[in-house]
Amino acid sequence: MKVVITGGAGFIGRKLAAKLLEKNSLDLGGGRSGAVDKVTVFDMGEPDPPFPPDPRLEVMTGDVSDIETIRRLITPDVDAVFHLAAVVSSGAEADFDLGMRVNLGGTRAVLDVCRELGTVPRVCFASSVAVFGGNVPDVIRDDTHLTPQTSYGAQKAMGELMINDYSRKGFIDGRALRLPTVVVRPGKPNKAASTFASSIIREPLQGDTAICPVDPAQAMWLLSPRRVVDAFIRAAELPAEAWGPSRSVSIPGITHTVREMVDALAAVAGKKVTERIRWQPDPAIQKIVSGWPMHFAAERGKALGFGADSSMEEIVRAFIEDELDGTFAG
Amino acid sequence: MKVVITGGAGFIGRKLAAKLLEKNSLDLGGGRSGAVDKVTVFDMGEPDPPFPPDPRLEVMTGDVSDIETIRRLITPDVDAVFHLAAVVSSGAEADFDLGMRVNLGGTRAVLDVCRELGTVPRVCFASSVAVFGGNVPDVIRDDTHLTPQTSYGAQKAMGELMINDYSRKGFIDGRALRLPTVVVRPGKPNKAASTFASSIIREPLQGDTAICPVDPAQAMWLLSPRRVVDAFIRAAELPAEAWGPSRSVSIPGITHTVREMVDALAAVAGKKVTERIRWQPDPAIQKIVSGWPMHFAAERGKALGFGADSSMEEIVRAFIEDELDGTFAG
Repeated sequence: MKVVITGGAGFIGRKLAAKLLEKNSLDLGGGRSGAVDKVTVFDMGEPDPPFPPDPRLEVMTGDVSDIETIRRLITPDVDAVFHLAAVVSSGAEADFDLGMRVNLGGTRAVLDVCRELGTVPRVCFASSVAVFGGNVPDVIRDDTHLTPQTSYGAQKAMGELMINDYSRKGFIDGRALRLPTVVVRPGKPNKAASTFASSIIREPLQGDTAICPVDPAQAMWLLSPRRVVDAFIRAAELPAEAWGPSRSVSIPGITHTVREMVDALAAVAGKKVTERIRWQPDPAIQKIVSGWPMHFAAERGKALGFGADSSMEEIVRAFIEDELDGTFAG
Repeated sequence: MKVVITGGAGFIGRKLAAKLLEKNSLDLGGGRSGAVDKVTVFDMGEPDPPFPPDPRLEVMTGDVSDIETIRRLITPDVDAVFHLAAVVSSGAEADFDLGMRVNLGGTRAVLDVCRELGTVPRVCFASSVAVFGGNVPDVIRDDTHLTPQTSYGAQKAMGELMINDYSRKGFIDGRALRLPTVVVRPGKPNKAASTFASSIIREPLQGDTAICPVDPAQAMWLLSPRRVVDAFIRAAELPAEAWGPSRSVSIPGITHTVREMVDALAAVAGKKVTERIRWQPDPAIQKIVSGWPMHFAAERGKALGFGADSSMEEIVRAFIEDELDGTFAG
């Protein structure tokens, strides 16, 4: 089985590549199953740090919106494509042309090349809850209308429409996953408005202070990196018949307030750790985060067998195991 | 006031151009109102028959997906663009690349040029009830999710997302109109599955036989050409504040069964006329038409002041007045 991961140098792409290599099997049905022979990680630049050496791993760099580059990346022997490459929300809002080029144009390049192959490859697309916005109900359902209020969300919604139509036409066998806010991200804080949700867990566990810019009562819709990786593999392995007339699904997460997230951190690591959080309200960030949907029925995702984390404690423990070698600064 | 109509040689574009020239005023608010100084009709080929001469009318031909062409068409002095150019449903389904190029690429070219102007022009986009499909409720609401089951519908839904996002960003002041099936179309039958809905009125009134391929009990969601033209002008003249976070609206129509359409024809023109209809069921066409949504709440459209026809009789009479000079073959 040969797999391509676009945006594969990002933190979810890296984990997905590692998991596929470790699992060493992929069952797409219809005679397409077996050991993982090759995982090609594609991104703008070289993965940093580099991947651990593996003869099955290949790294390729380039521009996802350049169709000639994508033709060299996605060749007829590729069985599955995980299309994660994207300009993030704040980036697509700040640079509209870049967002359209990468998030719309890049997705179209990937789908058009997949179509040219004639092999109907499996394509799993990273969509986002950012496709929702505007006047939506308190609890988002899988059939809630998409009225995104960011360019990123609009471009992801257009990607979903293409995934659906290219699948309906039989050009690809696509699936679009609307991902909750992923916590706990490893690494450093970034410019995303959601970055605090990982920082308030990650930094205190390493003895550093973290700033929480939102109200403790603010609720969020959350999923761990482990579960995101599992969701992509499950999405790839589900048969086409399971999807019906829509290839889009909201991946089940769990809703927790920031207070509950911090309480879970205290339960796992102690009160001394959570005392490293500084509560500094930032009205601008509060306003953005307040606008995000926080409750999802996710009935379709549950019916399709996608699994949420069982608790915030589980998410904290998984982070300590996966990213901190099982230890933390108590 | 200077206006551009893409797809302006089509039957709705022609009527819209004629109405704007006749009305000779357009009130976009914010200092943009006054007499209609210029209407530029843009299409692939020359209008056939040519428009009646009018010094304010200009015809331009070209490819809507070619941005250099659109830069020559939509210049900084243009106040409003009616973007009607599209490859129709059956065409976009038969030639996927053409549909993507014209329906997605053409819309993007129009919007990108409007954005380059820096003048935030008014843009009215012809969307379609084809954006709905798959598992939808019996009565479509304005917030019913879009899961189109045709490439045309998918491309129109992507157009709506762009209209919304370009408007939210302040690049344009856009509006997207989801149009019912338009009856009675003038001219000859075409390859659209819906063509019979006009044929069964139009042909018998001219002494010709018409074939009805669907069950008399089949219901359809209908709007007359007069009302479509009124809807575009109303959409252009509504202030931005009226729209809120979504620039899309389902235009109110009326639901009638084919039997009721024929009964209305009999009431207006007599039984002898309706005897010219031959009932020849065609399972392929019946299947397509059965899949179309036929009941719409259209609450938003009503609240925004869009008006449906009062009856099928009104639609038949308007056709006789507008297209047959007030007479018919009794």
